[in-house]
Amino acid sequence: MDTRAYLEERLPPVERAIDAALPPADAPPQSLHAAMRHVLFPGGKRLRPALALAAAEAVGASPERALPVAVAVELVHTYSLIHDDLPCMDDDAERRGRPAVHVAFGEATAVLAGDALLTAAFEVLLDGATPETAAQRLAAARELALAAGSRGLVGGQVDDLRFDPADRSVAHIESVHARKSGALIAASILGGAHLGGADAASLERLRRCGRCVGVAFQIADDVLDAGEDDPCSLVRALGVEAARERSERLLKDALDALGEFGERAEPLRALVRFAVRRRE
Amino acid sequence: MDTRAYLEERLPPVERAIDAALPPADAPPQSLHAAMRHVLFPGGKRLRPALALAAAEAVGASPERALPVAVAVELVHTYSLIHDDLPCMDDDAERRGRPAVHVAFGEATAVLAGDALLTAAFEVLLDGATPETAAQRLAAARELALAAGSRGLVGGQVDDLRFDPADRSVAHIESVHARKSGALIAASILGGAHLGGADAASLERLRRCGRCVGVAFQIADDVLDAGEDDPCSLVRALGVEAARERSERLLKDALDALGEFGERAEPLRALVRFAVRRRE
Repeated sequence: MDTRAYLEERLPPVERAIDAALPPADAPPQSLHAAMRHVLFPGGKRLRPALALAAAEAVGASPERALPVAVAVELVHTYSLIHDDLPCMDDDAERRGRPAVHVAFGEATAVLAGDALLTAAFEVLLDGATPETAAQRLAAARELALAAGSRGLVGGQVDDLRFDPADRSVAHIESVHARKSGALIAASILGGAHLGGADAASLERLRRCGRCVGVAFQIADDVLDAGEDDPCSLVRALGVEAARERSERLLKDALDALGEFGERAEPLRALVRFAVRRRE
Repeated sequence: MDTRAYLEERLPPVERAIDAALPPADAPPQSLHAAMRHVLFPGGKRLRPALALAAAEAVGASPERALPVAVAVELVHTYSLIHDDLPCMDDDAERRGRPAVHVAFGEATAVLAGDALLTAAFEVLLDGATPETAAQRLAAARELALAAGSRGLVGGQVDDLRFDPADRSVAHIESVHARKSGALIAASILGGAHLGGADAASLERLRRCGRCVGVAFQIADDVLDAGEDDPCSLVRALGVEAARERSERLLKDALDALGEFGERAEPLRALVRFAVRRRE
């Protein structure tokens, strides 16, 4: 499975759908709409949207079915980056080699652009539902709200900001990671599966897969930058070798959870490997 | 119709539902969950939840049906207050006679508590839906997302922050108000109507009502504080008398839109009058 070719084929409709989901950059208030797009275009790897599409494929649906959730998870991811970069949080002046939103547009607009992206995520996920798809959309949106909320992404960010280096237990670090980045990755997979019409047994397996990928993904990040300036890093707590072993173990568990999906889960398997190992 | 008695009867279940929708104040991360509750308990008048319940009654449903949207609009309202108070926005140190969230818990936690409340609003609105109510919940949540987003509340806040006193046209001021406070008030009424199973004709009338109430509500605020330190005030642009006339005109239009609802819309009519005149 050629991950690069898969992404090249699948992502253009996602780009168009993200673009279509937001008001144009020159719609009033112009500064707000331009700020909302600043980190989105050009964006990152679009890993979360790709996982959503591949999860829909894994349960036998057309990947297009998962587009609303693919867009929504990317909007939530982007809002979280904008707020994380704020002076009162990580105080990062740059994001992907460009000025952070609060640097380019001011702090108030950065807070509000994040707020608007989070709101837009739910708008796009609920938009265009039919009587047949209403329950699926609702389930995906609920999954997203749980993943993004105070027991998920936001709670993980709070614990990361207040991380006490004295409490460097593996369990605590993994709990921060599982919420701060893992929850949204798992929600991408589950959301795609919901929109693909997955049955309860498939959802349960994908939930297991998503949890493992979410944590392993963050370990991969820590390994890449060797946990250098992040006190809340499994690499710091365990060393590079043990951290790598842990992520390979989680990857194996994630792939095991996909064991019964057969051929059509190949793109999802490839993306899961890519998310954890960061190479095709 | 005794508004006070109506609120005393209807609001206790709303208080309990808000409480139940959020993790307890001591759930980890404790600072986040305490911050989320800081402005909610004790809260304000709960006007938006009351409008949601009364709108459900107006279309012939039991007010309890509207509880999920009643909670959701109060959470969105509260998130917007917390973010508006931030140093980079209105920089208010107090809210309802107590320290603002950023003063009591720090700026990062205030941003994140707002984020988590906004997310929780969608969670509670989507939670517990049945196959019969899925489409209604979805419609109410979409209405809420539109009202809260970049073309609604957030966009209004951007234009309010950047308000240019040279552009004191009534049309522009009303557009700011319609988005910054009007949209959420209208979404409270419409959301309650959706959950009450309103038909298309009723929704259209309530949409008209909501738009008028939303703008008139903000004029009432401006009249109360005589628009003293707010440059974006209709009282400043028109004078108190003309502003008051304008709000009475909008109130009349709002009540006219409710003309065909009969007796069961009496609570909604009373609340609409209360929202605009601030007296029972």
